[in-house]
Amino acid sequence: MSLLRQYSRYPAPDLGRYRRFVVAGSHVGWVKPELASELSGRPDIFELSAGDLHMHAGLATPEARSAAMAKVLHALRGQGRVPGWRDELYPVTQNFGETPLLVMERAAAPLFGVLAYGVNLNGFVGRGWEMKIWVARRAPTKSVDPNMLDLIVGGGQPLGLSPVENLLKECQEEAGIPPEIAELAQPAGIITLLIEAGEGLRVGQQFNFDLELPERFRPQNQDGEVAGFELMPVSEVMHRLRSADEFMYDIALVLIDFLIRHGFIGPEERDYLPLIAGLRRPIPFAASVPA
Amino acid sequence: MSLLRQYSRYPAPDLGRYRRFVVAGSHVGWVKPELASELSGRPDIFELSAGDLHMHAGLATPEARSAAMAKVLHALRGQGRVPGWRDELYPVTQNFGETPLLVMERAAAPLFGVLAYGVNLNGFVGRGWEMKIWVARRAPTKSVDPNMLDLIVGGGQPLGLSPVENLLKECQEEAGIPPEIAELAQPAGIITLLIEAGEGLRVGQQFNFDLELPERFRPQNQDGEVAGFELMPVSEVMHRLRSADEFMYDIALVLIDFLIRHGFIGPEERDYLPLIAGLRRPIPFAASVPA
Repeated sequence: MSLLRQYSRYPAPDLGRYRRFVVAGSHVGWVKPELASELSGRPDIFELSAGDLHMHAGLATPEARSAAMAKVLHALRGQGRVPGWRDELYPVTQNFGETPLLVMERAAAPLFGVLAYGVNLNGFVGRGWEMKIWVARRAPTKSVDPNMLDLIVGGGQPLGLSPVENLLKECQEEAGIPPEIAELAQPAGIITLLIEAGEGLRVGQQFNFDLELPERFRPQNQDGEVAGFELMPVSEVMHRLRSADEFMYDIALVLIDFLIRHGFIGPEERDYLPLIAGLRRPIPFAASVPA
Repeated sequence: MSLLRQYSRYPAPDLGRYRRFVVAGSHVGWVKPELASELSGRPDIFELSAGDLHMHAGLATPEARSAAMAKVLHALRGQGRVPGWRDELYPVTQNFGETPLLVMERAAAPLFGVLAYGVNLNGFVGRGWEMKIWVARRAPTKSVDPNMLDLIVGGGQPLGLSPVENLLKECQEEAGIPPEIAELAQPAGIITLLIEAGEGLRVGQQFNFDLELPERFRPQNQDGEVAGFELMPVSEVMHRLRSADEFMYDIALVLIDFLIRHGFIGPEERDYLPLIAGLRRPIPFAASVPA
């Protein structure tokens, strides 16, 4: 079956059905119209203008905006509308690395369609069709995608760490990969996410890394978020991507990107070009080439 | 200097300033309005409809369309308006691998803004920062980009060959790489082109391959299109991309993609995300993900 099945799990959203979310003049996300109307009932914090939802111009500093957003999100949380609350603050910017316009709870990012960043590690052993990829089964207690298949290491990009620093931290916590091995990981590009999640829009850019692990290495989860690890032959990974939806959606994209970069999928693959196009759906406001 | 300098050599075109070129109901390219008006003076071949340039519906077969197009292009060639005529036929399709709607002279592809496909080979020796990349200096007699730096192997995708078959042929002709070595090349994804060339729009999708060559291998050009070859350290390739426009434009993109895939450029690079976005500018009519 075509690997395109993975993309069809979440059709591309119709952005015209959302209100743009604008902070300090910068377009940073999308909000469902019903939520935008509701939020405009807090005129000290939000205002609707020309169809867009703006944070109130009177909230003139990142601190003021972050405090106001926290107030709003705690109220929504009280109504059970922010599933998977993590107590983890995400910076809101238009482009990666810019000074944050505000910070907000990570679990609420889809409600406002703001860009969330992450890191992923493809940890493998061997080369060519002898290659095996380390795969994790997520713990049944995870709030997002319990029991699904995942990479050996991956995680959201928190405030104050570079992607490489974050990767080293996650390598230690999620799989017990010591820094002297983890720092051999090579950056290998990105995938983007732009899908409708139940509560809003999931928008993401994820930094991918490859790491050839020593044969003798065995991952050991330190944070209780993993049920187990498996060293899966690359042919088996590809078969599962073709035939089922066992991997998390974003991880399926990361793996398809890996399989294409390493030559396991080539131009003779039906749908090679659409597969490549789907790895990085353009995010209208973020990191595009200057015209 | 930022590698983005390479993209700024040809700013992204404003497609709204072109007429869509439509064949048998399929949007397959873009034509400058002046050329579209001129061509509509041949009402047996072209017609303007709702702002688009259509091939006449009476030309009901690929053969009839190809013959009519050949007539038009020979007339334009007689007026010196098809620089670099090659006597090489390109298939016109909306997506790669589809049955061609017509075939037309390759050098005229930009006049009609139709998609041209190609293959590229990154031929290298060694790993990590010890890596060296084989680079070619184009012959002064080439009609396109004489004397510029190029890859060891690359070429347009002709009718009737698969990308891999074409790569093997070009490996032999351009660098004397024998099939038993060339077939070890690994597909590694694509770059796209969408730029304004003098006479129209250059639209392309190019299939990239990586090949680790034996240390002792020395390329030998067989077709007289290369002035010489050089084994260039990867750091030198990157320095030249940062500081000058010596490489052909599309080859600069292929090399930036290579440097990103192999981890020589990572998230700590200023402009990492715009660099990645620029490698595959979306081509509005071609190979995108089904919604």
